[in-house]
Order: sequence, then C-alpha cells, then structure tokens
Amino acid sequence: MRWVRYQSDGQAVYGIVEGDHVQPVTGTPFGDHQRSGNPVALDSVKLLAPVIPRTFYAAGINYEAHVREAATLLGAEPNLPEKPDIGYRANNAIIAHGEPIVIPSDATERVHYEGELVVVIGKQAKNLSEADALSCVLGYTVGNDVSERTWQASDRTMWRAKNTDTFKPMGPWIETDADLESMQTTVTLNGEIQIEFPTNDMIFGVETYISAMSRYLTLYPGDVIWMGTDGSSKNLKADDVVEIEISGVGTLTNPLVAG
Amino acid sequence: MRWVRYQSDGQAVYGIVEGDHVQPVTGTPFGDHQRSGNPVALDSVKLLAPVIPRTFYAAGINYEAHVREAATLLGAEPNLPEKPDIGYRANNAIIAHGEPIVIPSDATERVHYEGELVVVIGKQAKNLSEADALSCVLGYTVGNDVSERTWQASDRTMWRAKNTDTFKPMGPWIETDADLESMQTTVTLNGEIQIEFPTNDMIFGVETYISAMSRYLTLYPGDVIWMGTDGSSKNLKADDVVEIEISGVGTLTNPLVAG
Repeated sequence: MRWVRYQSDGQAVYGIVEGDHVQPVTGTPFGDHQRSGNPVALDSVKLLAPVIPRTFYAAGINYEAHVREAATLLGAEPNLPEKPDIGYRANNAIIAHGEPIVIPSDATERVHYEGELVVVIGKQAKNLSEADALSCVLGYTVGNDVSERTWQASDRTMWRAKNTDTFKPMGPWIETDADLESMQTTVTLNGEIQIEFPTNDMIFGVETYISAMSRYLTLYPGDVIWMGTDGSSKNLKADDVVEIEISGVGTLTNPLVAG
Repeated sequence: MRWVRYQSDGQAVYGIVEGDHVQPVTGTPFGDHQRSGNPVALDSVKLLAPVIPRTFYAAGINYEAHVREAATLLGAEPNLPEKPDIGYRANNAIIAHGEPIVIPSDATERVHYEGELVVVIGKQAKNLSEADALSCVLGYTVGNDVSERTWQASDRTMWRAKNTDTFKPMGPWIETDADLESMQTTVTLNGEIQIEFPTNDMIFGVETYISAMSRYLTLYPGDVIWMGTDGSSKNLKADDVVEIEISGVGTLTNPLVAG
C-alpha cells in the first residue's frame, strides 16, 4: 500500500495511491482511518512530505564507501562506526517531492545530495529484539540528506550544513510492501545516473538500528529513521534536478534553486 | 502570564496559572485561545511538559566554566565555541515537572544534571536581527539536560547519553513575563544548593542564537531552545531529587529512580 499526504482545501490529509489516482481517507496511517470520498488524480494533487516526525533520526555514517569518500572530502581519516549510534536531523528542513532545494546565497559550491532509505515507524515500540524490530515499521520512503560540506567541516554541529530550510526532501509517499533485500538505490543528476548501490548494503541494518535504539528510547508512530547513503556527490548548483529512486519504494525528485 | 499544559479527561489542554488555580482555555498559547470553564486547583492537576516541540534545539556548550569542567570530565582539552552553532535533543526524552528520571540499569554512576533556561518560540520567524530576536519568543521554561557522561565520551553521537527516555525534564510552565538579565539559576540536590549562576551569563545569548539560527532556518511556534548550563554535577543516583529554579520563571523538580 502507498500512503500519500497531500493538500486538500488547505488541509494536510492522507490518501492511498491506487494506480494513477488517490483514494482519500479520514484519519492517518498511524491510527484509525477509513476511505472517504471519491478518488482524485494523483498528478492533480499537491504532495506534502509524507510525515512530520515527532523525532527525526538519521544514521549518518552507514555505508563503507561513503565513510571513506566523506573523510577524504573533509580532510580527515576514515572512521568506521563501531556500533549503531543514531543521530538526528531537524523538521524545519523537510520539504516534499517536487519542491525546490534552496541554496543559501552564502553557501560554498560544495552542496551535495545523499540518497537515503527512510524507515517510517508505525507503532510505539520499546526494547525490540532484532528479530522483532520490523514489527514497528509502517513502511519506507526516500530521503535526500542535502549537505553543505564546507559548513559540515567548519561548524561545531551539523545545524546549517544539514538542516538549513529545504535541505531535507522526503517522499514521494510511504510504501508499506517493500522488501529491504531487493531494494536498489539509484541517484540521477539532470538525467544522468551518478551512483547505484544495494540499499541494504549498510554497515548496520534497519533491524540492528531499531533494536539498539529501542533499548534506550521509545519509538513513536510517525518517527522516521534515515539510513545513510553510499558514495559521494558532484557539487550541485541552481537549475540542477536530483532524482533518488529506491526500487520498490518510489522516486524522490527535487530541483535546486538559488536563494 | 504563566501557561501550563495539563491532563484533563485524558486530553492535553492548556491553562493559565492565576494564584494557586488554573484557568482552563480552549486552544493553545501558540494560536487562538479563550478562557473556557471554571478554574481548578493547580495542585490537583497532572502537569505535562509545557510543549512537545516541532524541533528541539539545544545550545549545549554555552557557559565558560561548564566547558572547562566538562572537558576535564571527558579527558579532553577545553574547546570554547567560536560561534553560535546550535545542536539538537529528542522529543522521546521529554518528561514533565514531577515525573521520575529513570536511570537505565546499564548506566554508569556518571549521571549528571544540567540546569538550563529554555526559550519557547511563539511565532514563526526567519531572518531576525539580534535587535528583533525576542519578538518571536513566547516565554521561558526550565530544562534539566540529564547526561550520562560515560556514554557521552564513548558514543559517536549523544543519542543515549542525552536522549534516553526521561532524560529531558522540562517545565513546570511557560512564563511570558520574565526578564533575561535578572534571572538567576539555582540547582538543588536533595535540598542542598549545588550551584547558583546568573542565567544570562552565556557565551552567546538568546538574541545572538535566535538571530544566527534564523538566518538559515525557520523557527516555528512551539520550538524550544535549551540554552546550556554552567558548572558541573555530582553523580546522581536513585532516590535523589533535583530542583532547578530560575528566578522569575519557575522551579522544575524531578526525582530519580532505578530502571
């Protein structure tokens, strides 16, 4: 099932994608809901980010090639994580599929994409074993962890490097029937494929992260976990278009504009 | 004015503290609201954290003595911040005034309090000058940035060191009429004063942080900014009680229990 969140009469509502239409529902995928009203054409609705999380988690470093390439870019030694220590991103930066990534006027040329699998939590969970970890997952969406590398290297935190407004595109929808092992992530820049990698080729997988996190923290419906990316990125500039496809989940497309 | 959030018939509602009573309101302090119903005794209501923020910001390092003492504890050189790079905490960890801080069974003895001023944003804001920065502030509350120092030193991120469930007490209310310059922070452990410091004796003040942040990010109603703490802490243990008073704002009290 594919859950979309979209604008209807100025309100954010959820619907279920069926072919090229959206079946509106009352309620949300995280609680009671029922079909309500007539289907509308998918390409006629203004998509919103599929959820604004209560807590926005991000693995950050979770693919070996990315660790080595990021270290080179930052002028540091590669430092592979020894355990699944989760990080955070910020809700102010979230935008939807199709919306523009705005490059601040004082950003350097080193603005990069990071194509990421996003896990969407559906049920409150604490102390899950790895075997039970996926029981709290509603489904998956796609994220672009846009990063300004100069600020990432110079600042004490990743606040503006990663969380400048519009730097966290997420969407287009939540796919509930995807299989981690068969996913492939493909990043395309202006129509040219830049990188392809097996999505689940992570240092620490989804089950490992959820189990480790839920030992100390409660996961809530609507929380998201961005699972990190592989490889590196060309410098992005205004009028570029980045597409991130995860097979079986969907394709997230966003243009870049000058701020 | 003092805004409390509390439980009423199983719902989270806001009210205004008037003497030892709460005047219920419909709506929230962040939008339309009006008085509705009869006052109830303040000591009869179950207080909730005054807000669950859209984004939970934290300055982290913002008082010089704390930087020097924390560096000693972590076995590192003191590293004074050169600019107001904001950090983050996580909503899962928020608890209310009076609720217990649960020490995980595998935590070391180095569980510490940090008494902090919390700025509560009332209006959406972007690109505020320092002179205009306080125009987006609704008021202030008190936070205890509970920290497990061994994990803080060993982990790649501060996820469990700072964001284990119950590690972020916040409250008891939002005070809208407080003056930054006259505030004094006092931390009391089991009835004995541990530290007192001028709340506004920050490396970077509230106006500086808000102005710097809002250059890159939009602040939203309900966002909170925890402003950091001074000094250090004894190791906390089960049955301890920590009180953090900020004069003109309020007193946040939480017991500790073993998990």
